[in-house]
Amino acid sequence: MEQTTSYKLLSKIDSPKDLRQLPVESLPEVCKELREMIIDELSRNPGHFGSSLGVIELTVALHYIYNTPYDRIVWDVGHQAYGHKILTGRRDRFCTNRKLNGLCPFPSPAESEYDTFTCGHASNSISAALGMAVAADKKGEADRHVVAVIGDGSMSGGLAFEGLNNASSIPNNLLIILNDNNMAIDRSVGGMKQYLLNLQTSEGYNRLRYIVSQKLHKIGILNDERRKSLLRFNNSLKSVLAQQQNIFEGMNIRYFGPVNGHDVCALAKVLKEIKDMKGPKLLHVHTVKGKGYKPAEEEATIWHAPGMFNKETGERIVKDTTGMPPLFQEVFGNTLLELAEQNEKIIGITPAMPTGCAMNILMKAMPDRAFDVGIAEGHAVTFSGGMAKEGLLPFCNIYSSFMQRAYDNIIHDVAIQKLNVVLCLDRAGLVGEDGPTHHGVFDMAYLRPIPNLTIASPYDEHELRRLMYTAQLPDQGPFVIRYPRGRGTQVDWKCPLEAIPIGKGRKLKEGADLAVITIGPIGNNAAKAIAEAEGQTGKSIAHYDLRFLKPLDKEMLHEIGKKFRFIVTVEDGVLKGGMGSAILEFMSDNGYTPVVKRLGIPDQFIQHGPAEALQAICGIDKTTIYHTLTHILNS
Amino acid sequence: MEQTTSYKLLSKIDSPKDLRQLPVESLPEVCKELREMIIDELSRNPGHFGSSLGVIELTVALHYIYNTPYDRIVWDVGHQAYGHKILTGRRDRFCTNRKLNGLCPFPSPAESEYDTFTCGHASNSISAALGMAVAADKKGEADRHVVAVIGDGSMSGGLAFEGLNNASSIPNNLLIILNDNNMAIDRSVGGMKQYLLNLQTSEGYNRLRYIVSQKLHKIGILNDERRKSLLRFNNSLKSVLAQQQNIFEGMNIRYFGPVNGHDVCALAKVLKEIKDMKGPKLLHVHTVKGKGYKPAEEEATIWHAPGMFNKETGERIVKDTTGMPPLFQEVFGNTLLELAEQNEKIIGITPAMPTGCAMNILMKAMPDRAFDVGIAEGHAVTFSGGMAKEGLLPFCNIYSSFMQRAYDNIIHDVAIQKLNVVLCLDRAGLVGEDGPTHHGVFDMAYLRPIPNLTIASPYDEHELRRLMYTAQLPDQGPFVIRYPRGRGTQVDWKCPLEAIPIGKGRKLKEGADLAVITIGPIGNNAAKAIAEAEGQTGKSIAHYDLRFLKPLDKEMLHEIGKKFRFIVTVEDGVLKGGMGSAILEFMSDNGYTPVVKRLGIPDQFIQHGPAEALQAICGIDKTTIYHTLTHILNS
Repeated sequence: MEQTTSYKLLSKIDSPKDLRQLPVESLPEVCKELREMIIDELSRNPGHFGSSLGVIELTVALHYIYNTPYDRIVWDVGHQAYGHKILTGRRDRFCTNRKLNGLCPFPSPAESEYDTFTCGHASNSISAALGMAVAADKKGEADRHVVAVIGDGSMSGGLAFEGLNNASSIPNNLLIILNDNNMAIDRSVGGMKQYLLNLQTSEGYNRLRYIVSQKLHKIGILNDERRKSLLRFNNSLKSVLAQQQNIFEGMNIRYFGPVNGHDVCALAKVLKEIKDMKGPKLLHVHTVKGKGYKPAEEEATIWHAPGMFNKETGERIVKDTTGMPPLFQEVFGNTLLELAEQNEKIIGITPAMPTGCAMNILMKAMPDRAFDVGIAEGHAVTFSGGMAKEGLLPFCNIYSSFMQRAYDNIIHDVAIQKLNVVLCLDRAGLVGEDGPTHHGVFDMAYLRPIPNLTIASPYDEHELRRLMYTAQLPDQGPFVIRYPRGRGTQVDWKCPLEAIPIGKGRKLKEGADLAVITIGPIGNNAAKAIAEAEGQTGKSIAHYDLRFLKPLDKEMLHEIGKKFRFIVTVEDGVLKGGMGSAILEFMSDNGYTPVVKRLGIPDQFIQHGPAEALQAICGIDKTTIYHTLTHILNS
Repeated sequence: MEQTTSYKLLSKIDSPKDLRQLPVESLPEVCKELREMIIDELSRNPGHFGSSLGVIELTVALHYIYNTPYDRIVWDVGHQAYGHKILTGRRDRFCTNRKLNGLCPFPSPAESEYDTFTCGHASNSISAALGMAVAADKKGEADRHVVAVIGDGSMSGGLAFEGLNNASSIPNNLLIILNDNNMAIDRSVGGMKQYLLNLQTSEGYNRLRYIVSQKLHKIGILNDERRKSLLRFNNSLKSVLAQQQNIFEGMNIRYFGPVNGHDVCALAKVLKEIKDMKGPKLLHVHTVKGKGYKPAEEEATIWHAPGMFNKETGERIVKDTTGMPPLFQEVFGNTLLELAEQNEKIIGITPAMPTGCAMNILMKAMPDRAFDVGIAEGHAVTFSGGMAKEGLLPFCNIYSSFMQRAYDNIIHDVAIQKLNVVLCLDRAGLVGEDGPTHHGVFDMAYLRPIPNLTIASPYDEHELRRLMYTAQLPDQGPFVIRYPRGRGTQVDWKCPLEAIPIGKGRKLKEGADLAVITIGPIGNNAAKAIAEAEGQTGKSIAHYDLRFLKPLDKEMLHEIGKKFRFIVTVEDGVLKGGMGSAILEFMSDNGYTPVVKRLGIPDQFIQHGPAEALQAICGIDKTTIYHTLTHILNS
């Protein structure tokens, strides 16, 4: 509580309206307080750190100049929106950020009218904002301004390009702010990044153009009616100014910048000046990720989401994990390197997540054997397909919820040709604090209908290693391995690399009264529940680890179908069309009529919070499984 | 047979090797014969016409200069590959093109080693080719050339941009040929098109650059080792040449062109000259869709796939459809206009398919109420989401198989927010001659797991109109309507617009011995089979039109669950996770244990051919349904 009182200005800003009452000279102080609050809060309550620090000045300037929420600010991804949250009525609840029933991890229209669109997956802001800009026009609210704020990392996504391409040919007054910090979570890559870098070198030209267009604006040429004459003039201007034309200008999107994103007064001035210019425009802003907190400026990837830290010393408070099982990610990363050392065909592909998925281990050891292709999930899969067509063996690692972006690529560019691509779905299942946009709960349901895929999920780290080994054996065709965020159960994870027969499950435990079928690490919840339920009921429960969602282990399922009257299925994926549904199909197709109780994610978007709490909400925690089992056995 | 003999050169070209034996002066004659053959064959056996005519010279030049199949040519979409097929050993089988068990509609690696990658969905060529180029490098086959041929229409797809973005930052020698005819199926739209247009104006500069780089090449500067010095030199050159830098050059992709795509000798010369240049490069080629056949040049959209025609007169042989039921597309297009006249919130959105889906009817009548956003399915959906967020009501029409491209956009940008977007899935089910890439058979399985969606499919044209009317009523949330290519059953299609209660099916026919549940127009096959099976067995069969895949009609399904021991489900979608699977889930969840026989698309990619033949192959034709019913009733 004593913290808040020290924020002299911020404590009085309950909405952007209050901010807009302040004189422009106060804005640097507002930024200072905002930065302090974010550093202070996040040192105790972990979250996305560097991105928000980088756009403090931009955030303040935007809410100062634009009439939010009537004007629309559309954030891309939303990692960077903490300042926005604090300024838009959520200051006092900011301490609940990312907690169960607390503030959402990303901007969410359900939470605030200032949050204009769903955030979480990169590159959607231009398309969404363009829709809003067009709507404003159609609804006769032409005075509404719409601003999309997109990072240079997100600009590598094809969706952003599609949005730009369309924004340039539909009448609209959209402002796109390119927040260029040369970073996604890891460093930005690709041609667009290079292109943006080149644009800096032409600052003189851009400044000149800016001054001229300012003059034009003041004398009134930049109003609607005379836009055509401006365009003519602009073309002449271009001729004069050595015909330079950047990609944005070439697409008829007026380009301004680059400008310093950490001078809040200058930013406010620029925004004010270009605010009422007609037509689509782009303001290129240079920012520094982690700005104002030295450790974060120096190691931007680590400080993207650093966990708790000592704000005075900049020391991250890292839990002692000695004796704990490793992260699935660590096992993936180390095993991939191990396999790549043995099999020269293996190539690693990641769309901008080398650190998150631990492919950086391979990258470091064998830089020419791994590719970060930027935020471009579709390309990552099709690029993998091209390699596989020529005999290489790509391990393409994409978070489960982001793989939704590459659905057609899997079908069209991999599965039809039965190409040997290993699709590694990290962050499968409930991911916890990142919430509904990030839960990887749809993958089993959306992949199962695709012909030619092998789909597997490991029960633990050993199984992950075995599945990775199996997937790289010759001619396996497209091979999906889904595994969750976080730790497994095997402290001694480095088991021998052995092949698993394709489509063979495991009987983890014999039993006579009921069969439990699980897939993936959620089976560990079931194992505990089974032990307790047997103790409570005195009956015996068989536990089968299905392991392969596709192809199904027919032999095992026939055994289950013949032997059991009651089956419980448990999965950390959606119930509709998921693993339990596959079991129903098998039983029905083969004439078995067991009573099947399916546990999994219900038909709704699941909020954010600790993964364990969310499992309980969805009914796939140990307790719910236990009650389900005892209910069946006692009835 | 007498046709072939008149092709003096072509008749001797059994593979590109034969072509490469000819002197360059013969190439115009080869082109002439190739053009004649395509015109002649397609006049009798319909297919994609204009695209292939437009790239005759390019095709001949490519196979003449490149050592195919060792060198890889990756066609984008594949509409344009008929010349390629004829030159690569399929001349004599070309008369079987698109027929059941005949040549594939698009290039297919399963058919020919010259077909390097799956074609059908736009914009994948750069990504796939980049994968191949990288693989050539890794495998020590650095002498292999890889060429992607992509149209300007496909360049609006985000995947193409992602490929470009990555191609510019990974070492490779890829050649991208931009086949610029200012067309997709309809006219190209968007900023990139504009940009490419602008590039033409700078031909003088480009020619100068080309000459200089040629000189450099000859004196050996353009080899691997000295690439850096070239880059330095190139930068200086740029400074001298007025600093102009196009988007490709800005991304470090060397740009050549634009060149005339109908001068085969000049094309061959250019290709030869740039062939061994290192690094990624793009050759901009101007072509005319339908080139060499006047009616096709003049009306390129109609002649994209004109059906049969009289090749002498250019008259299309259009079947007299008087008295026939309309196309679902016509009903969609006319009804959309009708609704838009009544509801000012309605906006039409199509990604480059205004003619195919008949949204051109709305576009013509209300040009400011419909948007062709280019080949950009993801953007189409997110853009719709942005509009819906602001209170408009977009009808976003995307072919079912292309909607796979927008899967994440549906989840992330529409469903989470429950936005009022009407997703119209044209070409749902088996599409016929366009084959495996185009069958819209996955949609029910991939959409059903998404929360907040309403998913419906009309039994006939009347139902389509009613569903469209229902979808635009207030606050319906995201609403999917899937319907097939082709004609329905209702000649008098213009029924009154009436609301259908959400999630309510219809009992089409009472019955006591067995229940048939269908969804969509495939129900008409079932209706006929039911009538015949009742006649044969003397038993009575109930027929339920589920109508809504989601939400399910619980009342109706409880009735079925209580009353029937045998259920047959019929759907023109994949069995895994589809409608039948939803029925199994309902029955299991509610304690019913009927015997359920599910008919639908099996777990494999289905070839091309007449839709009726494919239905029989998949077992959803009238005869198979009949046998299924009688088998159950007689057993």
